[in-house]
Amino acid sequence: MFITFEGIEGTGKSTQIALLKERLEAQGRRVAVTCEPGGSRIGAELRRVLLSLENRDLTPQAELFLYLADRAQHVAQVVRPALASGAVVLSDRFADSTVAYQGYGRGMDPELLHQLNEVAVAGLWPELTILLDLDPVIGLERAVARNRREGKTSAEGRFEAESLAFHGRVRRGFLDLAARFPERINVVDASGTPEAIALAVRALVEARLHA
Amino acid sequence: MFITFEGIEGTGKSTQIALLKERLEAQGRRVAVTCEPGGSRIGAELRRVLLSLENRDLTPQAELFLYLADRAQHVAQVVRPALASGAVVLSDRFADSTVAYQGYGRGMDPELLHQLNEVAVAGLWPELTILLDLDPVIGLERAVARNRREGKTSAEGRFEAESLAFHGRVRRGFLDLAARFPERINVVDASGTPEAIALAVRALVEARLHA
Repeated sequence: MFITFEGIEGTGKSTQIALLKERLEAQGRRVAVTCEPGGSRIGAELRRVLLSLENRDLTPQAELFLYLADRAQHVAQVVRPALASGAVVLSDRFADSTVAYQGYGRGMDPELLHQLNEVAVAGLWPELTILLDLDPVIGLERAVARNRREGKTSAEGRFEAESLAFHGRVRRGFLDLAARFPERINVVDASGTPEAIALAVRALVEARLHA
Repeated sequence: MFITFEGIEGTGKSTQIALLKERLEAQGRRVAVTCEPGGSRIGAELRRVLLSLENRDLTPQAELFLYLADRAQHVAQVVRPALASGAVVLSDRFADSTVAYQGYGRGMDPELLHQLNEVAVAGLWPELTILLDLDPVIGLERAVARNRREGKTSAEGRFEAESLAFHGRVRRGFLDLAARFPERINVVDASGTPEAIALAVRALVEARLHA
């Protein structure tokens, strides 16, 4: 089973993935945790290019193609092998982020992006996507605090440096995707405590696992 | 004026670009020489990923998207500004290489690749493309000798390590493109001496400059 977590910066995706992993492992399941960008060996090099504040001159088209390259490599080298080995795969971001960020955020055509995602994922769509939804004012505050805590303000701050209006459009993009693919994408309110959010996530995942 | 040089490995593209640059500068023109992959600052990082023999596990889709990312960045950050400043721009490889290598070489759909190129070049197609055509048996021999001479066998050998059949398909791809876009792409036999090839290139470029 392939589960992806989506949402703007600071919604707590990595926290929720860690909590879900713990829970699934306690039930005796094998779990592989991965992320985009950077889930594969080559992708880690691309992640550095994509997120560095030094690369603010990256054009929207180049950025798009780098995310797609990272995704194609990630699917082939990490996600497919992990699924084939019987693990539940949890990915921090996946194809929906491209439509939300490059489409709604940067103004590229969402339909074109969907077609490009089809090339990149080569048939491998998640069974379940958890969209952690949060007001960007709160999300950005959390993301900036986290980056400062982890000392990565300059290395990985390109998206946090975007305007609040940008992040508002990205949030809208994710919600539109959830409306378009209600079978796959489930929205979870991410304004509560990590424990409360984890309960909601767990309920969705267990319903799907038992289905 | 934007002129691109295309052809398989070992056809003498960089030699011909250097000779043409010299000639054009002697006529008082400003010339900017660039290349793909790697013509832009960010592209240089992508070039290393693309050409390294360590990255033989790069999937065809990831490879494609990396070339497109490099191209989008190259067009926006290098080619357009140089043209705007009044220079003649000479590029060692451009969009046709994607159709020849990823399409004919790797078997991806040439029509899809043409559409993706349109996104990457954003309207900026060359006025003239010189296709240096050569039997891959000779081209590969030259390319391998050059890499050995320049001590870059392990750093930039991913394409030279492909089979002769692969390079034969790539050559066919370039020739098909020349048949499809006869107004833009001119084929030059690259089996002669550098001086003889330079004469042919010069004649094509001067005819276009005076047109």
